[in-house]
Amino acid sequence: MAGIVLYSYWRSTTSVRVRAALNLKGVDYDTRAIDLVAGAQKDPDYAKINPGQGVPSLVLEDGTVLTQSMAILDYLEVAYPTPPLLPKDPVQRALVLAAAHTIALDIHPVNNLRVLAVLKERYGADAAQSRTWMNHWMQEGFTALEAMLPEDMPSFAFGAAPDLADLCITGQCCNARRWGLDMTPFPKIRRIDAACRAVPEIHAAHPEQQPDAQPQI
Amino acid sequence: MAGIVLYSYWRSTTSVRVRAALNLKGVDYDTRAIDLVAGAQKDPDYAKINPGQGVPSLVLEDGTVLTQSMAILDYLEVAYPTPPLLPKDPVQRALVLAAAHTIALDIHPVNNLRVLAVLKERYGADAAQSRTWMNHWMQEGFTALEAMLPEDMPSFAFGAAPDLADLCITGQCCNARRWGLDMTPFPKIRRIDAACRAVPEIHAAHPEQQPDAQPQI
Repeated sequence: MAGIVLYSYWRSTTSVRVRAALNLKGVDYDTRAIDLVAGAQKDPDYAKINPGQGVPSLVLEDGTVLTQSMAILDYLEVAYPTPPLLPKDPVQRALVLAAAHTIALDIHPVNNLRVLAVLKERYGADAAQSRTWMNHWMQEGFTALEAMLPEDMPSFAFGAAPDLADLCITGQCCNARRWGLDMTPFPKIRRIDAACRAVPEIHAAHPEQQPDAQPQI
Repeated sequence: MAGIVLYSYWRSTTSVRVRAALNLKGVDYDTRAIDLVAGAQKDPDYAKINPGQGVPSLVLEDGTVLTQSMAILDYLEVAYPTPPLLPKDPVQRALVLAAAHTIALDIHPVNNLRVLAVLKERYGADAAQSRTWMNHWMQEGFTALEAMLPEDMPSFAFGAAPDLADLCITGQCCNARRWGLDMTPFPKIRRIDAACRAVPEIHAAHPEQQPDAQPQI
């Protein structure tokens, strides 16, 4: 019987989040790499699996395909509740989700590779302009997030163990390093990222640890 | 004692979602309008409430502020479970969320007014180019969504009663009408929008019904 399969791309921040959750919850899975830069997500066979032509996609043992990283994370939380990635209290849960969504909705979609491709194609954006675009949205989102994070932050954003906000944050920090964002104004975010990287299950989800990782350019 | 307050903007599709959920769940709330076009979201008093400087924000009776529409919707689902906006089965729940996220993550953030403002400011996008940008992402997202929706769709996307995906879809359809998207290729989405507009609680959440609605230009 086939096991759980994760279609992912090493550098995709949405893939980092899902890999980290799978690892933390001890879910066994095989990785199949989708090379976003080579356009593998547009392959008709893959587009049948994921009509949005993105990663990650999680294929369950019975063949059911789940798409959209935040929906997959919600599924993992319901299906594999231990350890929890969201608090039980509805208000605390909403605060963690809001922090996660500042990354997952305000930053990531606008910084998606397909947006960069349209900027290049229709507006002639060059490499420097692409970098400015990426850093602009990270800077805006991180500024809002830094203000939303508790002043008396425990080890992680909202608790002593990593939650959904932490996983989104550490994934986005990989992208921040890639594009050279100045992280000086974001001490809380830097602290969360460092705490996450010290957790073996999260470290193993980071881009450099993936089978499809390429040497950094 | 102060009641629940929703900071919203009549035309904001994220506000439509949250208003519809509040109405369906029978939650009493007062609306305070934040005029996004006039820049009211950048007012320092409002930015203290919502550091992301967006709408909606939901202020609970004890003064707790919830931000990010999808986090607010999650809170409403946990705190006011009737009627449910998400199925109990984890896989069905993930499929509804994935459809909702195709709107909430793949379309809306890239079509946010603040992205249009940067396109205009840095790339000199004119009115026609803004329209092309808006329609491009709606076209892409709706194409993926149309393929994800069940062939044997009941009255709504996944069931006989409206769920979270339906609320995101009908909100986005308001924006599709505003920007003149050709909806011919999306019969399932059109059917869902029509079914939603026939529900009084959702109709009341649509832009034209809001106290801050402006005459359509």
